Amino acid sequence: MPTKLWEKDYDLDQKIADFTVGRDRELDLELAPFDVLGSLAHVTMLSEVGLLDAGAARRCQGKLKELYTTASAGDFVIEDGVEDVHSQVELMLTRDLGDDGKKIHSGRSRNDQVLVDLRLYFRHRIQGIAERTAELSRTLTELSEEHKDKLIPGYTHLQVAMVSSFGLWFGAYAEALIDDLRMWQGVYDVVDQNPLGSAAGYGSSFPLNRDRTTELLGFRAPVVNVVAAQMGRGKTEQLMAFAIAGLAQTVGRMAMDVCLYSSQNFGFLQLPPELTTGSSIMPHKKNPDVFELLRGRCNLLQSLPGQISQLTTNLPSGYHRDFQLLKEAIFPALDQLEDGLDIALYALPRTRVRAQELPTDPRYTLLYTVEAVNNLVLEGVPFRDAYTQVGRDVEAGTFVPPTELKHTHLGSLGNLGSERISGKLEEVMGAFGFERAEVALRELAG
Amino acid sequence: MPTKLWEKDYDLDQKIADFTVGRDRELDLELAPFDVLGSLAHVTMLSEVGLLDAGAARRCQGKLKELYTTASAGDFVIEDGVEDVHSQVELMLTRDLGDDGKKIHSGRSRNDQVLVDLRLYFRHRIQGIAERTAELSRTLTELSEEHKDKLIPGYTHLQVAMVSSFGLWFGAYAEALIDDLRMWQGVYDVVDQNPLGSAAGYGSSFPLNRDRTTELLGFRAPVVNVVAAQMGRGKTEQLMAFAIAGLAQTVGRMAMDVCLYSSQNFGFLQLPPELTTGSSIMPHKKNPDVFELLRGRCNLLQSLPGQISQLTTNLPSGYHRDFQLLKEAIFPALDQLEDGLDIALYALPRTRVRAQELPTDPRYTLLYTVEAVNNLVLEGVPFRDAYTQVGRDVEAGTFVPPTELKHTHLGSLGNLGSERISGKLEEVMGAFGFERAEVALRELAG
Amino acid sequence: MPTKLWEKDYDLDQKIADFTVGRDRELDLELAPFDVLGSLAHVTMLSEVGLLDAGAARRCQGKLKELYTTASAGDFVIEDGVEDVHSQVELMLTRDLGDDGKKIHSGRSRNDQVLVDLRLYFRHRIQGIAERTAELSRTLTELSEEHKDKLIPGYTHLQVAMVSSFGLWFGAYAEALIDDLRMWQGVYDVVDQNPLGSAAGYGSSFPLNRDRTTELLGFRAPVVNVVAAQMGRGKTEQLMAFAIAGLAQTVGRMAMDVCLYSSQNFGFLQLPPELTTGSSIMPHKKNPDVFELLRGRCNLLQSLPGQISQLTTNLPSGYHRDFQLLKEAIFPALDQLEDGLDIALYALPRTRVRAQELPTDPRYTLLYTVEAVNNLVLEGVPFRDAYTQVGRDVEAGTFVPPTELKHTHLGSLGNLGSERISGKLEEVMGAFGFERAEVALRELAG
Amino acid sequence: MPTKLWEKDYDLDQKIADFTVGRDRELDLELAPFDVLGSLAHVTMLSEVGLLDAGAARRCQGKLKELYTTASAGDFVIEDGVEDVHSQVELMLTRDLGDDGKKIHSGRSRNDQVLVDLRLYFRHRIQGIAERTAELSRTLTELSEEHKDKLIPGYTHLQVAMVSSFGLWFGAYAEALIDDLRMWQGVYDVVDQNPLGSAAGYGSSFPLNRDRTTELLGFRAPVVNVVAAQMGRGKTEQLMAFAIAGLAQTVGRMAMDVCLYSSQNFGFLQLPPELTTGSSIMPHKKNPDVFELLRGRCNLLQSLPGQISQLTTNLPSGYHRDFQLLKEAIFPALDQLEDGLDIALYALPRTRVRAQELPTDPRYTLLYTVEAVNNLVLEGVPFRDAYTQVGRDVEAGTFVPPTELKHTHLGSLGNLGSERISGKLEEVMGAFGFERAEVALRELAG
Repeated sequence: MPTKLWEKDYDLDQKIADFTVGRDRELDLELAPFDVLGSLAHVTMLSEVGLLDAGAARRCQGKLKELYTTASAGDFVIEDGVEDVHSQVELMLTRDLGDDGKKIHSGRSRNDQVLVDLRLYFRHRIQGIAERTAELSRTLTELSEEHKDKLIPGYTHLQVAMVSSFGLWFGAYAEALIDDLRMWQGVYDVVDQNPLGSAAGYGSSFPLNRDRTTELLGFRAPVVNVVAAQMGRGKTEQLMAFAIAGLAQTVGRMAMDVCLYSSQNFGFLQLPPELTTGSSIMPHKKNPDVFELLRGRCNLLQSLPGQISQLTTNLPSGYHRDFQLLKEAIFPALDQLEDGLDIALYALPRTRVRAQELPTDPRYTLLYTVEAVNNLVLEGVPFRDAYTQVGRDVEAGTFVPPTELKHTHLGSLGNLGSERISGKLEEVMGAFGFERAEVALRELAG
Repeated sequence: MPTKLWEKDYDLDQKIADFTVGRDRELDLELAPFDVLGSLAHVTMLSEVGLLDAGAARRCQGKLKELYTTASAGDFVIEDGVEDVHSQVELMLTRDLGDDGKKIHSGRSRNDQVLVDLRLYFRHRIQGIAERTAELSRTLTELSEEHKDKLIPGYTHLQVAMVSSFGLWFGAYAEALIDDLRMWQGVYDVVDQNPLGSAAGYGSSFPLNRDRTTELLGFRAPVVNVVAAQMGRGKTEQLMAFAIAGLAQTVGRMAMDVCLYSSQNFGFLQLPPELTTGSSIMPHKKNPDVFELLRGRCNLLQSLPGQISQLTTNLPSGYHRDFQLLKEAIFPALDQLEDGLDIALYALPRTRVRAQELPTDPRYTLLYTVEAVNNLVLEGVPFRDAYTQVGRDVEAGTFVPPTELKHTHLGSLGNLGSERISGKLEEVMGAFGFERAEVALRELAG
Repeated sequence: MPTKLWEKDYDLDQKIADFTVGRDRELDLELAPFDVLGSLAHVTMLSEVGLLDAGAARRCQGKLKELYTTASAGDFVIEDGVEDVHSQVELMLTRDLGDDGKKIHSGRSRNDQVLVDLRLYFRHRIQGIAERTAELSRTLTELSEEHKDKLIPGYTHLQVAMVSSFGLWFGAYAEALIDDLRMWQGVYDVVDQNPLGSAAGYGSSFPLNRDRTTELLGFRAPVVNVVAAQMGRGKTEQLMAFAIAGLAQTVGRMAMDVCLYSSQNFGFLQLPPELTTGSSIMPHKKNPDVFELLRGRCNLLQSLPGQISQLTTNLPSGYHRDFQLLKEAIFPALDQLEDGLDIALYALPRTRVRAQELPTDPRYTLLYTVEAVNNLVLEGVPFRDAYTQVGRDVEAGTFVPPTELKHTHLGSLGNLGSERISGKLEEVMGAFGFERAEVALRELAG
Repeated sequence: MPTKLWEKDYDLDQKIADFTVGRDRELDLELAPFDVLGSLAHVTMLSEVGLLDAGAARRCQGKLKELYTTASAGDFVIEDGVEDVHSQVELMLTRDLGDDGKKIHSGRSRNDQVLVDLRLYFRHRIQGIAERTAELSRTLTELSEEHKDKLIPGYTHLQVAMVSSFGLWFGAYAEALIDDLRMWQGVYDVVDQNPLGSAAGYGSSFPLNRDRTTELLGFRAPVVNVVAAQMGRGKTEQLMAFAIAGLAQTVGRMAMDVCLYSSQNFGFLQLPPELTTGSSIMPHKKNPDVFELLRGRCNLLQSLPGQISQLTTNLPSGYHRDFQLLKEAIFPALDQLEDGLDIALYALPRTRVRAQELPTDPRYTLLYTVEAVNNLVLEGVPFRDAYTQVGRDVEAGTFVPPTELKHTHLGSLGNLGSERISGKLEEVMGAFGFERAEVALRELAG
């Protein structure tokens, strides 16, 4: 029984085999349920266009549904010496069903198999990430509302600038995440196209019905051109990398803020002791390692687009084995991003929020100069003259901060616009169309 | 008359001034028309909410419309010693209108000015790039149809694989560009939000009407939270960088194919002499430098996300002057991408396309093994057995390529699906909504 | 018995513990022997300066030498729940030696422990990589000499240019690797400095003898300033990343050449069947996956400097937990580079080298135009006029390639200069000074 | 008179000409003196081996020395329509000397011309950067000594950790720069090899004396293999990019520290007003833009290795026009790095240094816990027990900081080891060997 789909009459050199298989057998396990779904759709279509008789199709579908149950439960096994998930599935069908199993590779290649596996897998992972991101945005909006009256200094150039608040700070990240979700949604639309039927990247002489597999797998459209379908390898991963890096930028910046604000020199945030770690030498230390590592992970994830570019640059059209390494770059990144979102969801609400003494802390008095300028403007002084006048008071040491704050416009201290932010969130989440895909796959595997 | 918006009673050190201004005065010229538009919207809103009297508003609007005409014609000048475009505009208003000019900075900061300038500018640039990309996709579809009967080898692993054609090859890039356009469309949606009213990133005590400036400038929505509006700096550029890098990957790969296919060892494409350059030492050389440089430019553009990440990583929330350098990274990249699209549109249709002698060229005979396998399958041999049988013929040197090709499914050699590809293109172009923005700006500046 | 060096009276939250430990327990195993060596040097010095009594020192040294034997054999175990290698070592000493074990952390911190571990580890890994690189260079020189008479076309712009040979091609990579080794040597010199005694990055109030630990560990010098020693974290890894990326560029380009030259369109190289892999659908395929994966791995490794930059950018001086992730980036990269060098050493000499029919192959006739020009020059025609004359012959189709090649200058076809290349190699290998380090460590652990 | 070295009987398409020339004419001006030097060495050698008669050689040398004077003074002009510096030089020789000028291209190609130009140019630029870096290191050591008694908190995880000082902080960067210089020195050694004689990358049939041009140009050795010489393109720039990025990391981190320490929340440093810039809306602002831009520039420079990798990845051996773009990446980076070093040298000594009230500031009391632990150790308590005891005092609020600091070991607060650091600096500067190159070039052009 062959352990490779391309079994020949001679043996592959063992050193070469080890080097080329790499981490495939491990990473392919993540693809197993999706590989089985792809085969289910292919077999169904083959039978409908007359390339597989009804009995063989039924038997293959039965066995594949069994395998889907196993794979969904995380129990799929790639046997020793079997090269990859595709070989393992064909091996199990052939072992159980004999000639029926040997027929299912008609009109496809391992190339479009892995392409469809990846697109199904990415669709699934995007959903997980989008839902966590939405949850984090909602949590941040709640924290924004809860702490909206707690003032902190706002900084520009790391210098004391104007009055801000925890309402603004939490709310800013709530809204920023929505822009990231919009990118994920664009990526989802590209991913959600069916490459099946492109075979080795040059199509097939069989009369395949590619619209039918598109429908069976719940894709919104086929990738039409078969060479384009193959070129999607590398492109799909590049777009995933963009979306990962974009979201990581936002979360990483938030983590940086938390680390800075937890410093004794700021003191705006304080992690409870059980969320901190200590030092081997300094008995007083309670360090925010969790946010430092969240920051570090997110920063590393921002290098992902560069990794994908490096792998794909100047490879002419057509498949190259280099593409296999895309999995090593992207799969762990998805896990790390999810873990990062989970830990943010866990740690943020447990972090203590400490309002600052504004404007009585002498470090923060000058936060109020714009209020003073604006008061003069309301008295009729042209803005630029008012600016100069207050500036001279500051220089002379005679500046007295106004005590009242009247921020009322949309998105300001006194009017956070949380419902507008929530509205944006729900709109973008609705645009994904996760349900259509879920329904189709449930039906196919049911 | 001050040359800086923050003019003080002491002078800035000249070395520091030179270092900090950097390339701002040059790059800001690109922003001039958009800066004026932002001021027009701001002034109109200020007057509507009672912060500027009707006469002053009318005078400011009149002068600003004049400046818009100048700036649109490319005739805007930043005078010697003036720090940036924002200073120059306020200077010109104050010079002509006196106190009226000094009033327009009420309720805003240079921070949200540049934010709104950039978003208006990016919206404009995205339109230019999207239209060129669509044009290139259409050109490629035409070339695909024109050359659909010209066969070439298809490769995997750079090894002869299966039969392909110029129809498939041109068409693949036509479709791939549409995925890139989808990313641009997602980015456009994020960019197309109004940051005006966020002032220095912490809002204003004036009762600004941010929905009104949103409407006046044709944005689809405001960035609600003022801290989020400020955080858009760096994020907007990151998303632009993603879209640039994504499109560059596709165009760069196409250029690599052209260079490879133009080599004497392939000979599929040939540039006419007047599109080639020569060697200082080898009199016979006719090199495809134009596609090498297109490839190189595109590859360099793929490093843009990394540059943006490097600039923004670990900067806490709030403005930092580092962000100024984002312009140096992004602005020239947009020019280079546009130039690259233009040169591709120019050079591709002028390139000679040379069909290959398939299957009579002995290098290419084995392109037909899958056809042979499929013929056996149609005779009832299970695929895997047919595969083994043909493989043994090849090894024995007895393989005879079948002469007929019957590729009929969607996206294959014999059924390119060009109208499906065109349909996708027009759908994504329609989703941008460029017209709404154009109409609003025309009205504002009219 | 504490499982963390900073054990407190409350428990660390389990979710936080899992997230923060990350892959430390696994990666730290690589550091175990070096951690023990660092402790041996520290204990010896402590005792010499009177901070540890002779008996305690002897007992600690005894136990540490035992641990070194275990760790060197790869048998070191980090027990369940123990945070890292440093905790495990102190735990084992304290478990066996009681109060003696509790004393060894005097005058150091986990910070300088991991710093010294990493520098010892990197020194060791650099040696492994340098020796493999030198071996590859020697192998390439041998192949260069073996195949020096086999001509191939030389290309510029992927266009046929001038005559080249396998002698030149193999030899070029032999010499290029030497430049990479020179970079490794520079990195080694930076790495080979002792950070021990910097404690948490701010030194110690104990009278440590830092020159003594420098000597014991075979470092060429101490990092003098303790804050600089801490800043070496991130910097050391950055330099390692540079050297890795540099070497990867050379090896990756060689792999690209092999893939291209193995294409039927070139046919200069041919892998034996047992080194190739096949296709699931095309029975004739024999693909050079091994070189594609070598290329892909090397290209990915070129993204390493970007990863390190992303992790470290804008972190102020002083330790941050983000640095822990540097291990995840660098350690596997070292393994991949070594594996890549090993597979190149294995596969290259097994690859079949096929001389080309020059100048009788019509694709390659124009390789000889410069020879024709030079012949005219030798007859007294000024170079530029000879160039024009031959160019016109080519255009007119009357060009006849000269049959004789007379390349005699250093580094040319007929004079490869292999002994000069070998001389450079041995010179750079001698400059590392691996022996000094080996001798010192042998003595310390003996 | 031809304006391109490869002038043919047909005209290059104007659009293609514009696209391919790109920024060459501007960037090549930087190479002009080095191009002339390369020609001087080539002509001298040609004459010595009998390929150019003595009279012609003398006339060419005379004209070239003239051109060198012009080029060194920055007065070299590339005329309208002339493609590059190499064409301009040959054009001027031919215009003045007729047939003599047409002879000098014997035995070389534009390829090795630009290779030698770049190596001479990089050698020159490295010297400028190394000298500035050394100057900055010396300045930092002076500041370290000047402020050695001014204490500041030391941080780990941005949390208050142990006592530090301006002596340590300035000194750390003084020493870190030396590691960067060591990398520059390694790069210099690779750069300092002669590619001349490799022609188009495949050598020449003329009996060139490559050791002679090596000597004339002051290179330490020739690149032996001609294909290796050509492969140096891209490699040389990669190594330059590494050294640039490495140095930028150090300087960028220093700038980040300055920005952070200038924040009101730290207050360790204060820029004098004339070195700060203001805000358009907040009259009180005095922002450290100069250090933010230094930081941003340095961070951008860290993306340079990624840019070079992107340009060169997967280009097979042999010249490709893509390499031309390397100049656009590297040349401005060198200017920016130099400008950054200059501005650091200018601004740092002008920055006000403010010692902190340690330990009386309640934020900073816990900086002294390790001192307390160490005091207990000196009384005989095992370190780990002392650690626990002090930790409990801290938790109970009973911790009293010891008042005395006794840091005496090398590199600590009380023993900065400045002379050791200076010794390292002078050693690495001596290893470059700038003088040998200077002497040779002076003689050649004299």
